[in-house]
Amino acid sequence: MPYRLYQEEKQKAVNVLNEIKVKLYNRGWFPATSGNLSYKLHDDPLYFAITSSGKDKGTVTHEDVIFVDKDAKPIEKTRLKPSAETKIHSQIYQKTDAGCVIHIHTVNNNFVSQVYFENGYVPLKDMEMIKALDIWEEDAFIKVPIIENWFDLDKLVSEAGKSVNPEVPALLIRNHGIYAWGRNEFEAKRHIEAFEFMFEYMKNMMLFTGKIL
Amino acid sequence: MPYRLYQEEKQKAVNVLNEIKVKLYNRGWFPATSGNLSYKLHDDPLYFAITSSGKDKGTVTHEDVIFVDKDAKPIEKTRLKPSAETKIHSQIYQKTDAGCVIHIHTVNNNFVSQVYFENGYVPLKDMEMIKALDIWEEDAFIKVPIIENWFDLDKLVSEAGKSVNPEVPALLIRNHGIYAWGRNEFEAKRHIEAFEFMFEYMKNMMLFTGKIL
Amino acid sequence: MPYRLYQEEKQKAVNVLNEIKVKLYNRGWFPATSGNLSYKLHDDPLYFAITSSGKDKGTVTHEDVIFVDKDAKPIEKTRLKPSAETKIHSQIYQKTDAGCVIHIHTVNNNFVSQVYFENGYVPLKDMEMIKALDIWEEDAFIKVPIIENWFDLDKLVSEAGKSVNPEVPALLIRNHGIYAWGRNEFEAKRHIEAFEFMFEYMKNMMLFTGKIL
Amino acid sequence: MPYRLYQEEKQKAVNVLNEIKVKLYNRGWFPATSGNLSYKLHDDPLYFAITSSGKDKGTVTHEDVIFVDKDAKPIEKTRLKPSAETKIHSQIYQKTDAGCVIHIHTVNNNFVSQVYFENGYVPLKDMEMIKALDIWEEDAFIKVPIIENWFDLDKLVSEAGKSVNPEVPALLIRNHGIYAWGRNEFEAKRHIEAFEFMFEYMKNMMLFTGKIL
Repeated sequence: MPYRLYQEEKQKAVNVLNEIKVKLYNRGWFPATSGNLSYKLHDDPLYFAITSSGKDKGTVTHEDVIFVDKDAKPIEKTRLKPSAETKIHSQIYQKTDAGCVIHIHTVNNNFVSQVYFENGYVPLKDMEMIKALDIWEEDAFIKVPIIENWFDLDKLVSEAGKSVNPEVPALLIRNHGIYAWGRNEFEAKRHIEAFEFMFEYMKNMMLFTGKIL
Repeated sequence: MPYRLYQEEKQKAVNVLNEIKVKLYNRGWFPATSGNLSYKLHDDPLYFAITSSGKDKGTVTHEDVIFVDKDAKPIEKTRLKPSAETKIHSQIYQKTDAGCVIHIHTVNNNFVSQVYFENGYVPLKDMEMIKALDIWEEDAFIKVPIIENWFDLDKLVSEAGKSVNPEVPALLIRNHGIYAWGRNEFEAKRHIEAFEFMFEYMKNMMLFTGKIL
Repeated sequence: MPYRLYQEEKQKAVNVLNEIKVKLYNRGWFPATSGNLSYKLHDDPLYFAITSSGKDKGTVTHEDVIFVDKDAKPIEKTRLKPSAETKIHSQIYQKTDAGCVIHIHTVNNNFVSQVYFENGYVPLKDMEMIKALDIWEEDAFIKVPIIENWFDLDKLVSEAGKSVNPEVPALLIRNHGIYAWGRNEFEAKRHIEAFEFMFEYMKNMMLFTGKIL
Repeated sequence: MPYRLYQEEKQKAVNVLNEIKVKLYNRGWFPATSGNLSYKLHDDPLYFAITSSGKDKGTVTHEDVIFVDKDAKPIEKTRLKPSAETKIHSQIYQKTDAGCVIHIHTVNNNFVSQVYFENGYVPLKDMEMIKALDIWEEDAFIKVPIIENWFDLDKLVSEAGKSVNPEVPALLIRNHGIYAWGRNEFEAKRHIEAFEFMFEYMKNMMLFTGKIL
C-alpha cells in the first residue's frame, strides 16, 4: 500500500461520517440502504473515506468506512466493498474544492430530476435559500446539472465527471438522486438541506400550477 | 404438539420482530394497530413466528409473538390470537424463498393499489430504487400484483396465494396494504423501504400530471 | 363537593392522559396548544378527567389535569380552567359508551371537514382501515358527522350533542378538528389513528382527481 | 459599553432560546442553518438576546447567543457576528409588545408568501386556529403582510419595519420566510405553530382547487 494513514485522521473521518449519517438517516434520506457519504483526507495524492455499500445507515458503527484512492481502490486491507458510486465522489474531489460529499435519494430530488431532465438542469432563482449555498448575488440564477441515470457505471462516472461544475455544489442523476458537497462536512450538510428545501418548494409550486416552474 | 421449539430460536425470532417493529412503527407504518410481521424458523415442515393481532406496535414486548405452522395454527400453547392474515404469510413462505415478511398499511401503498387496480399491477420502471430489490437489469420492468380486498378471508388468502410471484417480493391488496418480503429481515426491510419510496414518488408524479403514470 | 375521588383513580387517569398526550404530540397532533383529552372515571353520576386549557402538550406534568362533572364544573378545588370544549366531552360520555375522548386539530381533518361540509358528513367506505373502528361488515359505509364551527359555544355544544352518533366514534367540526372516542384509551387511540389515516388517503385521492370522492 | 447585563438575565435568555431552538429544529424548521430567534431583555433602552448567524441549530450551546441593542450592535464583547436580520427583530420589538421573535423558513410559508404576494397579504379567516393568535372575534379576518425579499438589507429592514402591524403577530418575506412573535416565548411558539398550521391547510386546499383561496 503506498499510503500511510494515521490513526487520528482515520478516527476523525469515521466520526464525521457517522455524525452526518445519523442526522440524515433520521430524516429518511437513506431509504433502503441507499446513498453514501465521503470525507476527503488528502489532496495530492487524493484519498478519502467513504461509507461502504449496502449497509443500513440507521446503525452507527466504526466498521462501515473504507479508505480509498482516486481510483476508488482501498488503500488499506478491508473486507468491505466500496460502492460502485465511489468513483463519482472521486470525480467531485478532483474537479472542485469539496472536502465532503453527500449522496442521497429523496422523492423530491427524484421529482425535479425527472421534471427538468429535458431541460438539462434544475433552475434555481428568486429564493432566499440560494444564499445558503454561499451565493450572495442579486438575481442569482443557479443551474443544477442533471445527467441520465446510465446503467453502465463507467459511462455514469464519466458523464458525472463532465457535468460537475465547481460553481454549483450539486449534481442530479435522473430518477436516482443528488450528489452535493461543500468544503467541509458543515458546508456539505448545509448545501444538501438547502437544495432539498428548494426542490420541495418547487415541487409544491408545480403541483399547484400544474406546470413546470 | 408435533414441533419442538428451541428457546434460542424463539428468542432470536422475537428479537428480530421487535427490532423491525419499532423501526417501522416510528415511521408511522403501523397506524391503528394495523399490520403484522413474521419470521420463518423452519422450512419442512414450515413454521414461523408472527406478531399477534390487534396490539399497539409502539410497545415492545416479548409476549406478542406467536409460533404457528403452515395452517396458521399455534404450535405452542398461547392465549394470543393469530391474525387472520397469518395464512397470507404462510402462502408467501410456501411460494417464495422469503425468510421474513412485512405487512403494512400506508397512504402511499393504498393510493397506488387503488389507482392501478384495474391494471392488475403497479408498474415499476426507470427508477434507480429498483436496484434495492436486487434487480440489476437495464430497463428492468417490475409488476407488483394487486388483488381485490376480499371480505371473505379464505378467498383473500387463496387469491393472495395465486398472485404471489417469486420474482417480485411484494403483493398489494387494494385499499388495504402491502406484503413485502426478503430472504432475511435485512432484505425485507430494504425491500419495503424501496417499494414505499417508489410509490411515494409515483404518487407525486401523478398528482403533478393528473394522469396515471 | 359532592364527589369523593380516590387517589388511585386520579393517578390512573393522569397517567393515561399523559401517555396518550405525549404520543399524539410527537406526531404534531396538538399544534399551538390546541386539542384536549379526557378519561371517564364514573358514570352515574358522570365525572371525568380532562386536560386543562391552553397548555403546551409537549410537556408532561401531573398538574394539567382537572376533574369535572357532567356540567364541566371542577369537582375538586383547582386553579386550572377547564377548556370551553369540556362540555362536548361530556355530551359524548352521556350519549355513547366512550371511556376516553380525544380532540385534535390536523390539516387532514380540517381538509375533509371543509370539503364535505355541504354533504353533512365524511363518507367512509371501501377501505380496509374501517375495520380498525371495529366495524366488520362487508360494504360497510360510515358517515362521520360534520357540524358548523359555531362561534357561540353553547350552540356548538348543543349541536355537537345532537350530532353524536353512538354507532360512529367520531364527530368533525368544520375547519376546527375532530373528536374521536373509544371504550378505553387503547380504542380511542386506535380510532383516531384510523380516521386520520383515512382522511389523509382521501385527501390524496381528491388532490389527484381534483374531485370530491 | 453603556449596558450592564446581569448574569441571571443572560442565563435566562440563553435557556429560553435554546429550548425553543431545539423544539423547532426537530420539526425541520431551521433548514440549512437558516432562521433566528430572539428574546427581549429590556425595553428602554431596548436590548435583546439573539442567536448568532450561520450556526447549525441542531446543536445546543450556550455560546451562540449575542446581546445587542436596538441598532443590532453587540452590547458585550463577542467574537460572534449578529445576523444581518437582527435589525428586523429590533423593528418588531420597537413597534409591538413582542417579548420573543421567531424567524423561520418553511416550504409552506414560502408557498403562501409567493402565491399571495400580489395581494400584499395572506388572508386568514374561517379557521378555528385563528383563536390560537388570541383573536376571539366571530368572523375574524386577519391579514398577514408580505413584503418583497429585498436584496438590499437596509431596504429590507425599513420595509419590514413599515409593514409590522401590532394587531397581527407575523410578517412574511416573499420566498424567504416568516417572522412571528408573542409577548413571551410561550406565545411566540404558539403563534408560529398556528400560522404554519393555517398555511399548510391553505396550501392543501389550493392544491385541491387549483385556485388561490
